[in-house]
Amino acid sequence: MIYPKIPLAQTVIQLCKAKNIQHIVISPGSRNAPLTLGFTNDDFFKCYSIVDERSAAFFALGIAQQLKHPVALVCTSGSALLNYYPAISEAFYSDIPLIVMSADRPKHLIDIGDGQTINQKFVFENHILYSANLKLDLKDEKNIPENEELPIMKNLEDKLERFLGFQKDIQSHNEFEINTAINNALMQSGPVHVNIPFDEPLYETVDKLTVEPKASEVVIKPKQIDSYTLQECLEYWNSYSKKMILVGVNAPNQIEQRWLDEIAKDDSVIVFTETTSNLHEDSFFPSIDQMIAPLSEDEQKQLQPDVLLTFGGLIVSKKIKALLRKFQPKHHWHIDKKRANDTFFCLSMHVETTPNHFFETVLPKITHYVKSNYKDDWSLVRKKRLEKHESYLKAIPYSDFKVFDVILKSIPDNSILQVGNSSAIRYTQLFSINKTLEVFCNRGTSGIDGCTSTAVGCAAISNKPTVFITGDLSFLYDSNGLWNNYIPNNFRIIVINNQGGGIFRILPGQKNTDNFDYFFETKHNLNAKHLSNMYGFEYASAKTERQLKNKLQAFYSESEEPKLLEVFTPRTINDEVLLSYFEYIK
Amino acid sequence: MIYPKIPLAQTVIQLCKAKNIQHIVISPGSRNAPLTLGFTNDDFFKCYSIVDERSAAFFALGIAQQLKHPVALVCTSGSALLNYYPAISEAFYSDIPLIVMSADRPKHLIDIGDGQTINQKFVFENHILYSANLKLDLKDEKNIPENEELPIMKNLEDKLERFLGFQKDIQSHNEFEINTAINNALMQSGPVHVNIPFDEPLYETVDKLTVEPKASEVVIKPKQIDSYTLQECLEYWNSYSKKMILVGVNAPNQIEQRWLDEIAKDDSVIVFTETTSNLHEDSFFPSIDQMIAPLSEDEQKQLQPDVLLTFGGLIVSKKIKALLRKFQPKHHWHIDKKRANDTFFCLSMHVETTPNHFFETVLPKITHYVKSNYKDDWSLVRKKRLEKHESYLKAIPYSDFKVFDVILKSIPDNSILQVGNSSAIRYTQLFSINKTLEVFCNRGTSGIDGCTSTAVGCAAISNKPTVFITGDLSFLYDSNGLWNNYIPNNFRIIVINNQGGGIFRILPGQKNTDNFDYFFETKHNLNAKHLSNMYGFEYASAKTERQLKNKLQAFYSESEEPKLLEVFTPRTINDEVLLSYFEYIK
Repeated sequence: MIYPKIPLAQTVIQLCKAKNIQHIVISPGSRNAPLTLGFTNDDFFKCYSIVDERSAAFFALGIAQQLKHPVALVCTSGSALLNYYPAISEAFYSDIPLIVMSADRPKHLIDIGDGQTINQKFVFENHILYSANLKLDLKDEKNIPENEELPIMKNLEDKLERFLGFQKDIQSHNEFEINTAINNALMQSGPVHVNIPFDEPLYETVDKLTVEPKASEVVIKPKQIDSYTLQECLEYWNSYSKKMILVGVNAPNQIEQRWLDEIAKDDSVIVFTETTSNLHEDSFFPSIDQMIAPLSEDEQKQLQPDVLLTFGGLIVSKKIKALLRKFQPKHHWHIDKKRANDTFFCLSMHVETTPNHFFETVLPKITHYVKSNYKDDWSLVRKKRLEKHESYLKAIPYSDFKVFDVILKSIPDNSILQVGNSSAIRYTQLFSINKTLEVFCNRGTSGIDGCTSTAVGCAAISNKPTVFITGDLSFLYDSNGLWNNYIPNNFRIIVINNQGGGIFRILPGQKNTDNFDYFFETKHNLNAKHLSNMYGFEYASAKTERQLKNKLQAFYSESEEPKLLEVFTPRTINDEVLLSYFEYIK
Repeated sequence: MIYPKIPLAQTVIQLCKAKNIQHIVISPGSRNAPLTLGFTNDDFFKCYSIVDERSAAFFALGIAQQLKHPVALVCTSGSALLNYYPAISEAFYSDIPLIVMSADRPKHLIDIGDGQTINQKFVFENHILYSANLKLDLKDEKNIPENEELPIMKNLEDKLERFLGFQKDIQSHNEFEINTAINNALMQSGPVHVNIPFDEPLYETVDKLTVEPKASEVVIKPKQIDSYTLQECLEYWNSYSKKMILVGVNAPNQIEQRWLDEIAKDDSVIVFTETTSNLHEDSFFPSIDQMIAPLSEDEQKQLQPDVLLTFGGLIVSKKIKALLRKFQPKHHWHIDKKRANDTFFCLSMHVETTPNHFFETVLPKITHYVKSNYKDDWSLVRKKRLEKHESYLKAIPYSDFKVFDVILKSIPDNSILQVGNSSAIRYTQLFSINKTLEVFCNRGTSGIDGCTSTAVGCAAISNKPTVFITGDLSFLYDSNGLWNNYIPNNFRIIVINNQGGGIFRILPGQKNTDNFDYFFETKHNLNAKHLSNMYGFEYASAKTERQLKNKLQAFYSESEEPKLLEVFTPRTINDEVLLSYFEYIK
């Protein structure tokens, strides 16, 4: 075996291995050579090479989202690292584990005008679970003299440490820091940063390990619900007749079906599911906006629950947020191992456990279903909405709305559906979704900056075929997502090209002025054909419903290349069709 | 006139105007609508619309680099802001003034699970001159109840302030913060961050201003050299016979020619200039690496100066850094208004003034030229190197080295030359450069993440034609730099495509293993043709010296579109030609 000669690099790599961090996304560089050499020469690791760090980090996020296990990122020193930040913030708010490993210069070469050098320590402090700052063993620092000629002040700390004999503890300091960082990523499921100084020579290798770092154990205890909390939950659940469950981003197959069945039987419970919740039950209420957008204030008040139980990540629907802020529940419980957002300014309880554990603890103890018309009444509304939805679809011209209907119906069973921000996911939420699909969208920060790269990461690791639906701005923004050697042939991209940021036409701006078109909608005439050709995608396009249906027929069939279908829609009609929809289904 | 209704937006815009911040680079969004509406409806401002914030920030940097005056950036809330970070760090280390203005949610909507929301305050803390966190006037906050129903804890600070009557001071707090931020950018020439919370409604406008913010005065006093410093400088300058001046990144026309002439007469002074120094004098020593790379340790010691005087920004040449760290001068003075890097671990004096002011104060007081062979001896070496350089060029095959020679000779007089990182600038430094060119390169962090966007920003604002030379990885990385409506037709890009990161072949890695090709060099088969077509560039390519010379003939002539010339070079020959060069010129 070949190992990097630098003990610190060996330490990092051995601890990753011990903790089963297997997927390593590497961006090219020289300062990180010790890590690159080490990871790529050990078959335990599956290494990926991606040049643009922004895309690399979202790609890693896409893998980690599927694995639910940390993926490591490795980059060189300097601004390279800063390009990870958009994905780190997404990981932070979406609870996706990433281990960011940045190579750094030795301390004495920082802030003295050396090239490709920034202040890397704690640089992600606002959005990171843990920042580990490793130290270089002074005996590895070749560039500074061994005598007292160290620059005054600059290395006073080092000199002091050397003088006092702290230096012998650097290895254990580093081991502790690496262990803590990785354990945080594992236990709290989020991003951590390990900053790793290396001195030259960087490319030397050895054939035997010279250090044996110790991996500390990770103990993840499932949190139990205490009896007081349980009692309170049961009491309210058994007494109130209007209970609402609202589910945000939730990975597929997290909740046992028997609990969903159980909940479905209770007439006093309405379950609002977002498309990203991956929950399906006939009596649940998906398409929240379709349901509540047309409601009058009086009707909204009737929907106001006594108890609101939420779980999962962030909520896409602005309308339900506005409604529940205005008509707040008496009790809002959020079920999550890690955090509880006070999204409606009335959070009364954070139950620190998994939703599944909550249900298996609470539901069997529910003594009776509270008699209630809550669900039945709203089921009638839903039935009406769905009928109106169908008749609206028949009446409208070719537009984003119609295109989403056609596309969502076309996706083969058991695919993974990755959806871009923000129009794409908002449209998707208005339609009934095939229950066999697994749906993902970067809703931690709702950025358009890495949707493609995330989808590619997902496609690269998943056994299922991945379909990615995105808008044109989002697609162009992350075009480097296609600069990637790991795109499987069964990957499918559908770009809805409405020649700009269609979402801005739906917001209350001053539409159809030059100023609006240019600075808000950012109208353009670009298309995805050139990028498709450049990066080896089979390209097709459609400009009418007929063309679209026609092109979709063969779109999902096996192919020698991944495919991209670009669907052009009329930008000035799209917003009217959508806004009229909410009027029509009243 | 149309103004945004929100007083805080008016305040920001009015203060920018008062301080003559004229160029505003806007990325689309809704939260920043009050700023977008305000800036774009006032003809005083020149507004640019760029979707990808990473590229937008480097574009702004390119403009500010030319103007030497702050350029503003405006983006929406969430991860959008984080995409500015690479350019902010470049601006921080290159002393380029940028005013980053991020729209934010009101405080009560942060950290409660609202969409597109991160912790924006102080997010650039490691690399920013000043972070201003503006406050929302509570009476503008529509979404929170006016009574005591504010969420406990979350808004305790607001409640307390309201109770104690601090709220009336929010306007003056904000004015102070905005003034301080902009003044810092102006006086210290670097990036500042202004975070601006806005509550809905965001799109309302008024036809009269409702606030009249006061702009505080900016006083920039040129720092004088105190008599003690002056005395010391003169004493050493008049006594030592080996003095070296080393100039890093330096904007064109900063130093008066008479001082350069004066210095050129002194035989005890060697002036090493980097290409990015934009200094030209026949007796100076450009092409530092050409000069010193072949030196033996003994020869290096002979070059060791008694006094080293440095000015300008970061130094590209690693070899001169290594030499001066090993053979340190007795005295190292750095001349700069703002900072002095201890690049060689022997900084003895930071003279806080401009180089020009230093020269006009010190040089007239120099009593005599110290008798010395220092310059003459090394001029002989230089002469030999230049002869060898020419004969080497005749001997070598088609390669990066040869291509740079041909290209650099082809650039029309009085152009601006923008050079990408890192091979491109390193090659450029080995050749004599046309003295009428103005040369720029992002050497603050030496990233490849925004070279194209920076060059485009420069081209958009400059009256001179801009030529941009870049490597393939750098070009592909920042391909969104071409997604830009402000590229003038006289803009020229030359992509040296050696199918990967050629620079890694020059470093001491294990070349020509699969592992190396894949993870270090990141070999690829991509070209720039698709992107050229996509973004409306006239494309040409060359694969031989003859083709190159042929294509260059018409390349700079007037055209209806900007042009891109892609020069393919043989990746496995390039490194050998370069490494042999340093042997050959010994």
